[in-house]
Amino acid sequence: MNVYEAIEKRRSIRAYKDQPVEQEKLDRIFEAVRKAPSASNRQEWRFVVVRDAGLRQELMRAASQQSFVATAPVVIACCAETDGHVMKCGQPCYPIDVAIAMDHLTLAAVEEGLGTCWIGSFNEAEVKAILGIPEKIRVVELLTLGYPDAMPSPRTRKSLEEIVCYDRWSL
Amino acid sequence: MNVYEAIEKRRSIRAYKDQPVEQEKLDRIFEAVRKAPSASNRQEWRFVVVRDAGLRQELMRAASQQSFVATAPVVIACCAETDGHVMKCGQPCYPIDVAIAMDHLTLAAVEEGLGTCWIGSFNEAEVKAILGIPEKIRVVELLTLGYPDAMPSPRTRKSLEEIVCYDRWSL
Repeated sequence: MNVYEAIEKRRSIRAYKDQPVEQEKLDRIFEAVRKAPSASNRQEWRFVVVRDAGLRQELMRAASQQSFVATAPVVIACCAETDGHVMKCGQPCYPIDVAIAMDHLTLAAVEEGLGTCWIGSFNEAEVKAILGIPEKIRVVELLTLGYPDAMPSPRTRKSLEEIVCYDRWSL
Repeated sequence: MNVYEAIEKRRSIRAYKDQPVEQEKLDRIFEAVRKAPSASNRQEWRFVVVRDAGLRQELMRAASQQSFVATAPVVIACCAETDGHVMKCGQPCYPIDVAIAMDHLTLAAVEEGLGTCWIGSFNEAEVKAILGIPEKIRVVELLTLGYPDAMPSPRTRKSLEEIVCYDRWSL
């Protein structure tokens, strides 16, 4: 499917089939992830791909008890090994660069018939303890991955007129 | 082209043809952008699409004198109208959500035969003054957009083994 179809088809999936994700699909997806752009090609992103059922159960507890985190066959801790570089614009580059890679991941997943959900509601220290992630590493987001068991309707979105203007600010 | 082909084909484009971007392409691209996910569907992203040559010249000066910023037919100030919400994981959601929308934008651009380049090296206050962007709005990144005049070779990337591990941290 083309990019527009994948974007159209993507949903935040919170119900997954009890079906593992094939290793070759994971490999293709992460091949796409590693090609993402990043500030000065720093590639600070790191991923812990969790398939172990016990660990997923523990991650669920660290992620505000959201039960779908345990039932998704794969939970990915999306991390940054960062030197804390702040761009001239004032933004640290690591959360942005991890997000770019994760968006690549979510669209590649659609191409593979898989669903994902971004999770920002989790306790970072607990996730690091569960997965043995070193102190200096930041866990930016969790992402669930698996075969969707239900496809939610599209959520409402702001109109183009509410988010796009031309040449000078007029929103 | 499918998602993998678009990801493979995407480059950071710093040389553009002197050729405007059709309005219908911009409309299709921003239709894709507005479908991006965001924390609690906040959609804090806002975009100032700059085509005026004088303004692009001024933006070039605010963006560390990177000359391609003035020669790109479109420069987009990718902004956030944010309440400063910080997710439980400790990350503010607005830079991540703007980055997700921008990644959608860059891949949709490839689908349209267009190129983009992320720019984090700019003076935020100067960009806001040039475009009349209100004080409370953050400018997260600039993005150039246009028909590529030259296609750089792919840059090196870390191997999968350097960025992906399974079940427990082992990088």
